Amino acid sequence: MYRDRVRLPSLLGKVMNAADAAALIEDGMTVGMSGFTRAGEAKAVPHALAERAKAHPLQISLMTGASLGNDLDKQLTEAGVLARRMPFQVDSTLRKAINAGEVMFIDQHLSETVELLRNHQLKLPDIAVIEAVAITEQGHIVPTTSVGNSASFAIFAKRVIVEINLAHKPNLEGLHDIYIPTYRPTRTPIPLVKVDDRIGNTAIPIDPAKIVGIVITNQPDSLSTVLPPDDETQAIADHLIDFFKCEVAAGRMSNNLAPLQAGIGSIANAVMCGLIDSPFEDLTMYSEVLQDSTFDLIDAGKLRFASGSSITLSSRRNADVFDNLERYKDKLVLRPQEISNHPEVVRRLGIIGINTALEFDLYGNVNSTHVGGTKMMNGIGGSGDFARNAHLAIFVTKSVAKGGAISSVVPMVSHVDHTEHDVDILVTEQGLADLRGLAPRERARVIIDNCVHPDYRQPLQNYFSAACAKGGHTPHLLREALTWHINLEETGQMLAN
Amino acid sequence: MYRDRVRLPSLLGKVMNAADAAALIEDGMTVGMSGFTRAGEAKAVPHALAERAKAHPLQISLMTGASLGNDLDKQLTEAGVLARRMPFQVDSTLRKAINAGEVMFIDQHLSETVELLRNHQLKLPDIAVIEAVAITEQGHIVPTTSVGNSASFAIFAKRVIVEINLAHKPNLEGLHDIYIPTYRPTRTPIPLVKVDDRIGNTAIPIDPAKIVGIVITNQPDSLSTVLPPDDETQAIADHLIDFFKCEVAAGRMSNNLAPLQAGIGSIANAVMCGLIDSPFEDLTMYSEVLQDSTFDLIDAGKLRFASGSSITLSSRRNADVFDNLERYKDKLVLRPQEISNHPEVVRRLGIIGINTALEFDLYGNVNSTHVGGTKMMNGIGGSGDFARNAHLAIFVTKSVAKGGAISSVVPMVSHVDHTEHDVDILVTEQGLADLRGLAPRERARVIIDNCVHPDYRQPLQNYFSAACAKGGHTPHLLREALTWHINLEETGQMLAN
Repeated sequence: MYRDRVRLPSLLGKVMNAADAAALIEDGMTVGMSGFTRAGEAKAVPHALAERAKAHPLQISLMTGASLGNDLDKQLTEAGVLARRMPFQVDSTLRKAINAGEVMFIDQHLSETVELLRNHQLKLPDIAVIEAVAITEQGHIVPTTSVGNSASFAIFAKRVIVEINLAHKPNLEGLHDIYIPTYRPTRTPIPLVKVDDRIGNTAIPIDPAKIVGIVITNQPDSLSTVLPPDDETQAIADHLIDFFKCEVAAGRMSNNLAPLQAGIGSIANAVMCGLIDSPFEDLTMYSEVLQDSTFDLIDAGKLRFASGSSITLSSRRNADVFDNLERYKDKLVLRPQEISNHPEVVRRLGIIGINTALEFDLYGNVNSTHVGGTKMMNGIGGSGDFARNAHLAIFVTKSVAKGGAISSVVPMVSHVDHTEHDVDILVTEQGLADLRGLAPRERARVIIDNCVHPDYRQPLQNYFSAACAKGGHTPHLLREALTWHINLEETGQMLAN
Repeated sequence: MYRDRVRLPSLLGKVMNAADAAALIEDGMTVGMSGFTRAGEAKAVPHALAERAKAHPLQISLMTGASLGNDLDKQLTEAGVLARRMPFQVDSTLRKAINAGEVMFIDQHLSETVELLRNHQLKLPDIAVIEAVAITEQGHIVPTTSVGNSASFAIFAKRVIVEINLAHKPNLEGLHDIYIPTYRPTRTPIPLVKVDDRIGNTAIPIDPAKIVGIVITNQPDSLSTVLPPDDETQAIADHLIDFFKCEVAAGRMSNNLAPLQAGIGSIANAVMCGLIDSPFEDLTMYSEVLQDSTFDLIDAGKLRFASGSSITLSSRRNADVFDNLERYKDKLVLRPQEISNHPEVVRRLGIIGINTALEFDLYGNVNSTHVGGTKMMNGIGGSGDFARNAHLAIFVTKSVAKGGAISSVVPMVSHVDHTEHDVDILVTEQGLADLRGLAPRERARVIIDNCVHPDYRQPLQNYFSAACAKGGHTPHLLREALTWHINLEETGQMLAN
């Protein structure tokens, strides 16, 4: 059943059940697991670890690529396994524990975790748990639906557990391109100059002697839930596509735009779907996660090639894509997240980066992570990797939330993830603000005029006018700057009725 | 007198006086001028332009490399010439005009200005004014003590004015390495893999037909004023050097450390001077500005090679270095600021970036620019270019200012230039906080224990404890978060006596 998946015969003796594999993980260890945007995570071993911890408590530091599916972060949190967690998560149970100060969460740029490991600035994983479709004749690991940080975790860890997941078809092999930057001080340029360049191997090269356990599983990835476009997300998409048309007309981009990156979520999905009926042709993606819209664009003949670090699909597209992978295989590559998000490559290729903001302020500072300045939502993810070096750093959000109780445009953001220096374009359903080459006072006028919901436009204008009267390059009234957030915390809405 | 400096004979007819050259600049134009950290700025033409504007008002958008010397920003501001100014400045008169909203100041990462120009996201300069030591036989421009953005300004501008400054010795020729990234979508890696690699030309290659005026000047750069180390800056240097020793002992760096970048100012100078008596050998710099300490380190046999974008010296070192340039010439290179600060190169080389903070907060967010959240000091400069991609992103500041009325460590910074994601190490004279791999609550404890002045330690601990009791990944009390800044604004001190 799995003998064709473990192609180095000497490793067949390492096959064991999940509980025995989980027993190799000891209290206090640092563990690196596969998994990125709920795709390709190790499934059986973390579940068995959570089960074991119920009877025999233990705590670990867990690092992954990004978010895990199959409620694993929930199970591990409830079992008290997580002392530390990095670099990203999306689980509501874990989120509560993080915000209660029970789990130490290190929120990192997704490109940076393995660079910190490589330089021994983070503790190396004692053990790595990596989901695979196969182990090659050389004992190398073929990842499944994500690469994430799996390659470096497996390379850095002293011991490696492999989960061979029979639910993934073997023809995923060949999709991956594993390139690891060389060591300093003799590090050389990353030789990637086009989105479809292949610069590495199709499997993770490790010494097979490090493989201490192989667990056979048969459990699919979690499906994503992408909301279809609504009136507001459609309006955001329309504004952005109109803007792209203007950029092309002005000669600043060609009709195939520039390599596209889109964050996860319904707004980014609406924007990508909007490209199907656009005049743009021969598009490419250089992104983190390939979602439904990636394959819709390929099917529509609009998208020529997509580079990512994972594939995460909804029920609408999942079976169709993976059952017909050969149709897509020459148009796709999955890379380590260090490479999909690498500042060197992002700047070289000139990405259009589209990411979601929680809120932004008058001057273009963006909060991607913290509700009310204190409570972690998910994490910065790759948004900073892309925004800082993108050709166009675009942030999108609906102008209001909670039925209008919250304005997404505020006098001063309660937490900054992306500074005014890194934000080019802001879009809400109200319109688009082009901040390029503008000073702070000019940015404020463009944002008020274009992005703010009508209910909040006059209050924000009043704040800005009063702040300008007081002076400063970036005018603020410190006594009022966070009042909207304080009101929200105390009354449930940013402004009194 | 200047014929050996203008080596393409057909250009000799373009020599004119400064007033005539300045007359080529028209109202409403965008002008790109040389000048970086008060080195190598065009001198006579902007002065003549300011003089002309007193009688015949005009306004321009002025972009430079960074700050100008010889009071030129002051003169241009007083004459009302500056409608817009980017990407950096240090002049007190201009600063007042920026903070009054009279000059629109666009505060940019220093690596990004010419990238924005290249992509037509900023208006290209109508005219460039570049200081040179010579024009070559090919009509190419040999810069003086800075490269800054001069190369791209000259390449992008339709017309170029060259100031040949006889006060600079001709043997500056050969010091520069002019490399310009290729255009997308076929951009290739920047082929720089060692600090001493030369990858370009020694002069700025332009079509000499674009040179519309040559002005002969004889005026030195402004001298820098570096304060000698005092007890506090010496303590900061000592903490940092002890930290480096620990990093070497732990095997995370070799005894030649990593290429060093140091911002301008007395603290960075003290740190660099501290390396003279350190055990580290065979050091290198990959920085923006080469200051007195660079040459002190070379003379001490400690520094093997220094790459920068300018040389700015005090009266103590200026004459000695430039009179004996041959002694240093094989140990120096000056590059365009796009390359000295390029994220691709900074990440590849693994820089140690040392920059000055105005203030930082409990969680490691750094404000480099805005006093009280509103008033611009100088600009972000290159600090973000280095901090984001550095091997070690270090920020230094004295723990208190204004005789203790201001704490440099605050509950929440009033403006964010560098987010918690980008800051590794914070140092004050009190001690050093190593934030690597820590969650926000852990960072707060390390910062309170190590960096805060004793007068502010208990108040900051009280804030943190109360905020933790309220909860959140990054605990804050929104009603109190900016109180220290409000107190300062209203009473002149952050805390009541």
